[in-house]
Amino acid sequence: MPKLRVHSIAMSLDGYAAGPDQDRQHPLGVGGNRLHTWAFATRSQRKMMGLDGGETGPDDDFIARGDENIGATIMGRNMFGPIRGDWGEDDWRGWWGPEPPYHHPVFVLTHHPHEPIEMEGGTTFHFVDDVGAALEQAFAAAGGADVRIGGGPATIQQYLRAGLVDWMHVAVVPTLLGGGERLFVDDLGSLGYEVVEHVPSASVTHVALARKGA
Amino acid sequence: MPKLRVHSIAMSLDGYAAGPDQDRQHPLGVGGNRLHTWAFATRSQRKMMGLDGGETGPDDDFIARGDENIGATIMGRNMFGPIRGDWGEDDWRGWWGPEPPYHHPVFVLTHHPHEPIEMEGGTTFHFVDDVGAALEQAFAAAGGADVRIGGGPATIQQYLRAGLVDWMHVAVVPTLLGGGERLFVDDLGSLGYEVVEHVPSASVTHVALARKGA
Repeated sequence: MPKLRVHSIAMSLDGYAAGPDQDRQHPLGVGGNRLHTWAFATRSQRKMMGLDGGETGPDDDFIARGDENIGATIMGRNMFGPIRGDWGEDDWRGWWGPEPPYHHPVFVLTHHPHEPIEMEGGTTFHFVDDVGAALEQAFAAAGGADVRIGGGPATIQQYLRAGLVDWMHVAVVPTLLGGGERLFVDDLGSLGYEVVEHVPSASVTHVALARKGA
Repeated sequence: MPKLRVHSIAMSLDGYAAGPDQDRQHPLGVGGNRLHTWAFATRSQRKMMGLDGGETGPDDDFIARGDENIGATIMGRNMFGPIRGDWGEDDWRGWWGPEPPYHHPVFVLTHHPHEPIEMEGGTTFHFVDDVGAALEQAFAAAGGADVRIGGGPATIQQYLRAGLVDWMHVAVVPTLLGGGERLFVDDLGSLGYEVVEHVPSASVTHVALARKGA
């Protein structure tokens, strides 16, 4: 059975997976960049961005796993861009330039209809207004491969609450954000999740959750 | 200048430093024991409990540091015991038996007056109804040594908010509690704190905070 996976969600010590006041200048919210320094230092993340070099080790291993056997991505509209409410006249095409690093269909959750956007390199953004429909379409598009939830926290929480996430990796980053979007708001134990991996690195602590008995 | 220090506050991955539904059977709240498994495995913690053996390494080092140069302890009344509101006729004397592991004066924050309780081994519980007065009395009692805040989360937060904590050690435990008392509720960066140590062990991740420039 193909799985629904969450990878490399970075969370501050005080529990935030995105900083406050996201806008065009702050795609990850104010201070949110600090959550991702560890990732940008890895060989796999640099390769995705077309850069040479970078570190190997546990951080790199976790980043690399996020790319394996993924056929489609689901994300919330706040991860897709800074526009709220109606799309209006804006020709927003995501944060990632003409060739986003997905190279597969991406399903963006939004109640505001939008035509699909075909990008270079195999990424097409589809806009879907229902969590269940997005999942169904993503699995169909993945053609037997797994589906990854890109984020943000609110989108991940919706799929966790429905018990639909099979595996989830969180990197705890030793920094304070002081505000933003909390990653953990539900009782995940009652929802059937438990910690299945714990791998500290010099920069962060990797923890993976999965459904009990899965 | 003597310092106000916080040591070995264990926090679950989902941000709780105590489990829900604390009572006489669950001093740390339901599931709260899971936060302290790492500590009870260390040589220093076992020695405090009169036991031989135990592990050495980073976990043990952090536990041992919590005992160095401490002359008094401050704690909230919920850490002292399960009684809420008036003390009533109950002869509650703390969770720690006839000889508590403090061996110095302990100041318990409560709005309900209570006579001091002198225990064996040098621990006396004093009851104080004001955060500032407790701090003043604790520093006076410590006679030049540092003061430690024992917990719980609400007590620590009061002293953090007032900018009075000099150093604070948190152990992030890879487990889910799903509810209880959150450790981080304020914007500690704005309050002047930053991360100054990050030491992962096989069991937990140790992070220390201090006031910027301190």
